[in-house]
Amino acid sequence: MVTHRARVGAHGSDAGARYAHGVSDVVCQILAGELEASVVARTEELVAFLDHRPVFKGHVLIAPVTHVETLLELPPALMTPLLTLAQQVAAALGTALDAQGTFVAINNVVSQSIPHLHLHVVPRRRGDGLRGFFWPRTRYDAGEQEAYAERIRAALAPTPH
Amino acid sequence: MVTHRARVGAHGSDAGARYAHGVSDVVCQILAGELEASVVARTEELVAFLDHRPVFKGHVLIAPVTHVETLLELPPALMTPLLTLAQQVAAALGTALDAQGTFVAINNVVSQSIPHLHLHVVPRRRGDGLRGFFWPRTRYDAGEQEAYAERIRAALAPTPH
Repeated sequence: MVTHRARVGAHGSDAGARYAHGVSDVVCQILAGELEASVVARTEELVAFLDHRPVFKGHVLIAPVTHVETLLELPPALMTPLLTLAQQVAAALGTALDAQGTFVAINNVVSQSIPHLHLHVVPRRRGDGLRGFFWPRTRYDAGEQEAYAERIRAALAPTPH
Repeated sequence: MVTHRARVGAHGSDAGARYAHGVSDVVCQILAGELEASVVARTEELVAFLDHRPVFKGHVLIAPVTHVETLLELPPALMTPLLTLAQQVAAALGTALDAQGTFVAINNVVSQSIPHLHLHVVPRRRGDGLRGFFWPRTRYDAGEQEAYAERIRAALAPTPH
């Protein structure tokens, strides 16, 4: 699974052009060998490399080799490989960097800087200052929570017939 | 898949006791019917309900029915169901709440408030103020990034023999 730096692509050299979104897709560029990256794992389906501007050093991004834009487009066949590699990377951050935990996240559309699905695996330590990450939280007014739940249930429910 | 409020458990009434961790496992309590929740989806394998202290209203938590503590212990058989339901919930937040995107995340150990794996699906809108979420970022010194990658690769590599 583990490969080395630089060229790791299975893509043709037209990958950059093929996936022209108006914004640069660094994942496809890395896969095409057009952009250097510190790759930590490569499988047939996935590539894992270091975010060059990490939340904490050792922050890994895992992306499918095929161009998938957000989680909503991830084919079922890639789901187990993605979470399996996430488990392996999370465990490796413990071994390699003494991480006590990890933060695993995907930004879809909003705050998504690369138009190619990438799962963040960030090494965490107690007291690392990321405590505020999930804040501030808000509160529901009386009855409001259940009203939100009902709207989401309705959107999830199969169309009645 | 979609069920209604209150009792949604497949657990026996001893669930709370069975999973005594010294900290309360609200997921098992919800599944045992010991704690009310606004459930938005329930499958054989998973339950999805509203976080009662949401980052944004409509913030959903998805958890396996079986007691799995962190992502590292998630069995492969639950990976596709988990990400499939995450896709469905993310799509429903778009439909139900006009979310423009989603933030999907798992805290493992550090910042993990419930000792039962739960995947956050948070509705996002541009300009919602969560821009600072992934900041501040840091930088690697010269050569440092590749040194980190090498340590992670070594931890990922199969034991030589």
